[in-house]
Amino acid sequence: DKYTRPAVKTEIPGPKSKVRQYRPRAIMCNTGALSFFCDFEQSKGNYLVDADENVLLDCFQQISSLPLGYNNQELLDLCKNDHFQATLLNRPALGTFPGLGFPQLVEDSLLRVPPPGLNQVITMACGSCSNENAYKAIFMWYMKKKRGQEMPVLDDLAYETCMKNQVPGSPKLSILSFDGAFHGRTLGTLSTTHSKPIHKLDIPAFDWPIAPFPRLKYPLEVHESENAAEEARCLEIVEDLINEWNTKAPVAGIVIEPIQAEGGDNHASCEFFRKLRDIALKYDIAFQVDEVQTGMAITGKWWAHEHWGLETPPDIVSFAKKMFVGGFYFSDAIRWNMGYRIYNTWMGEPSKLHFLKKTIEIVNSQNLVNQAQLTGDYLMKGLKELESAYPALLNSSRGQGLFCATSISGDGARDKVSKDLLNQGVLVGSCGNESIRFRPSLLFSPAHVDIVLDKLNVALNNV
Amino acid sequence: DKYTRPAVKTEIPGPKSKVRQYRPRAIMCNTGALSFFCDFEQSKGNYLVDADENVLLDCFQQISSLPLGYNNQELLDLCKNDHFQATLLNRPALGTFPGLGFPQLVEDSLLRVPPPGLNQVITMACGSCSNENAYKAIFMWYMKKKRGQEMPVLDDLAYETCMKNQVPGSPKLSILSFDGAFHGRTLGTLSTTHSKPIHKLDIPAFDWPIAPFPRLKYPLEVHESENAAEEARCLEIVEDLINEWNTKAPVAGIVIEPIQAEGGDNHASCEFFRKLRDIALKYDIAFQVDEVQTGMAITGKWWAHEHWGLETPPDIVSFAKKMFVGGFYFSDAIRWNMGYRIYNTWMGEPSKLHFLKKTIEIVNSQNLVNQAQLTGDYLMKGLKELESAYPALLNSSRGQGLFCATSISGDGARDKVSKDLLNQGVLVGSCGNESIRFRPSLLFSPAHVDIVLDKLNVALNNV
Ligand code: FES
Repeated sequence: DKYTRPAVKTEIPGPKSKVRQYRPRAIMCNTGALSFFCDFEQSKGNYLVDADENVLLDCFQQISSLPLGYNNQELLDLCKNDHFQATLLNRPALGTFPGLGFPQLVEDSLLRVPPPGLNQVITMACGSCSNENAYKAIFMWYMKKKRGQEMPVLDDLAYETCMKNQVPGSPKLSILSFDGAFHGRTLGTLSTTHSKPIHKLDIPAFDWPIAPFPRLKYPLEVHESENAAEEARCLEIVEDLINEWNTKAPVAGIVIEPIQAEGGDNHASCEFFRKLRDIALKYDIAFQVDEVQTGMAITGKWWAHEHWGLETPPDIVSFAKKMFVGGFYFSDAIRWNMGYRIYNTWMGEPSKLHFLKKTIEIVNSQNLVNQAQLTGDYLMKGLKELESAYPALLNSSRGQGLFCATSISGDGARDKVSKDLLNQGVLVGSCGNESIRFRPSLLFSPAHVDIVLDKLNVALNNV
Repeated sequence: DKYTRPAVKTEIPGPKSKVRQYRPRAIMCNTGALSFFCDFEQSKGNYLVDADENVLLDCFQQISSLPLGYNNQELLDLCKNDHFQATLLNRPALGTFPGLGFPQLVEDSLLRVPPPGLNQVITMACGSCSNENAYKAIFMWYMKKKRGQEMPVLDDLAYETCMKNQVPGSPKLSILSFDGAFHGRTLGTLSTTHSKPIHKLDIPAFDWPIAPFPRLKYPLEVHESENAAEEARCLEIVEDLINEWNTKAPVAGIVIEPIQAEGGDNHASCEFFRKLRDIALKYDIAFQVDEVQTGMAITGKWWAHEHWGLETPPDIVSFAKKMFVGGFYFSDAIRWNMGYRIYNTWMGEPSKLHFLKKTIEIVNSQNLVNQAQLTGDYLMKGLKELESAYPALLNSSRGQGLFCATSISGDGARDKVSKDLLNQGVLVGSCGNESIRFRPSLLFSPAHVDIVLDKLNVALNNV
């Protein structure tokens, strides 16, 4: 690593970030979301350098989207490759005019790491279109089942009515999602997102069923029966909703994150997920696991749902972010067989699969899945020690591999701590109302954990 | 140019394309849409080389998404630049952690070519998220207008209900679209898409108003009064629908393509669009022009709607495809001021703006906007001459700049001609039921037109 510790010279955002702010204020309308400007050329590995030359230990990695941190040398070398450059520049309409090497590229990247039991995959470009198209595949599967064939017989009323957004061609069906979920911000996925009002206010939505997600109490070992009751309550409501919606907009599928990220890093037990999968089987509805944020090794397995010990694999597993490209894996049952049903101009981007292929090689050769587990355990151990030191302030530390979060109680305390951390040179994310979340790169090591715990101790002490 | 004419060695798809097909059959589910495999490294400018070394004059350009054809040398040089590579590899969460140079990059790319009267812009990644977020901006603007302030007062019922997809937080509002329109395939944009049943079947949709798009008769000069009546009829229905929907889901905005592309290359008069804009003003609803396919010079102006002579600019102009990146321009009135309302992880991709910046420089220095107009006129003249030669077969040639199409009457005749063209080495697109469409690169010249007309003559003769 080029850097070994954070080095902060200015408050953050510093003066050089601030002089740039007038421009996005005029052009991007995201000023409320703007943190600071980054000097990506100077950044390396786990360290992000900002416009004011502050060197930050980045535990958030562009909202959990960089698997190997900044300027990984092997990926940079790939950028210099002629074939890579031709793939990047001549971006195809991939569903119709793929490049020569594309089938092999899919084999060497996405099909190296399929979730157990799923051997079909389709590429998309971001988390939203991955989930939108997964929902579409679910609706298509549901209707295929209902009519006993993929397409209606010719001249069916369905062809005519779908063009006008009317039943039976555009059927009244729904996707069941969970309170606190985040699956995207386009109108379909936003109807299954229930994280913060600012994401949803003023936007029309489908009236689809929303079940409660278990709100576990920590420490888990102290609240075992209470948490089990909470999970049972949620599962019961899931069944009630499926029955209730049957008469207005039947539930075609259930979508769930293995850990609700944006909604506050909410976890549930493996048993909860196994039972939920069973409910989907019982009612013959699709079970989609949204691994956009949990996928790619960060939880200590390639896919977070591998922790659950499912007997029947999910029907669909969607991905994006650290995978560089979006898309979803799916079962043979979900598979459709007509071109142009699930389609768009770009269908993802093949150059991103080159990044993915190389990253998979690096993760495997450096045993980074296992390292994520071990380093994550070390981080959790440290967070729990800090809980003991600051019992009134810090609580509910929770995590799977490096996908960790902790809660900070008290009015404004979370924001204060996270700002303090930043000004000590440690960048973390926040989620929910009182949590900070860790989404470091897969190159995060115990040495980095030590720095984080040290600075967090200072920040908590300062509250 | 490396190539000066098409050269076909095999039938297309040829044997080397065919051996590759088993793989996407197992993994991509788009086999019905697959044409052939491409050798992008061997392709250059207007010529696409396929897996079997057939050299094709490409008049479709990856569904109208490559402005300068294949392997443009200046863009390839850009790929070799260190700063470009760092921008590509370290893809940021752009709304929160933009790179140092991003504001200037937006100035040097998107803000070099804003539609007249619009000076705000936001980036997205594809046509679907551009339109999805444009609709969201329209809904937000509508509700801001209604309540007299951007956000509801604290503790408003709106915050609570929006989390459950219920009114008043998730209001019942609609976007008015047109029969034959194509605006995307995610669930929101798909509710405004009405091109082909295969795009929509089995997918739940919002019940939003759909107006007829004028079906003009050709040649225009022969059907003047009939066409004017047809346009008046459509405009009247637009007003009727706005009034009718007012009680169930008020129309917050109108979205329209300057030329309906996917729906069959349907044109309307400049007067039609001016009157439609007036209707939007009359009812105080937003007017969005979807220039995803028409934008970037191909119609002989940078933006197709510049042809209309509008007195009041559109409220929103969305783009993607040849612009490399998605997004939309918008007026000061549409502008929102809270972070995270229109937001996602990637918010487009800065490296694409480098491609755009360089492409704008090339287009301007080589006067390609004007060339698109002149070459397009030459193509149209040739198509009309072929209409005279094959009056029973060819009709309704129509175009603006290089954005041209023509119709081929008779059962299966269109598919036969387009296949014949392909096997003569000319790749065109199809749209609607009986049209072929030309979406060549901006480097298309009269010499290329001569080749196309020559081969089209042969193909028509063969029918
Ligand atoms: S919706 Fe995913 S890239 Fe546009």
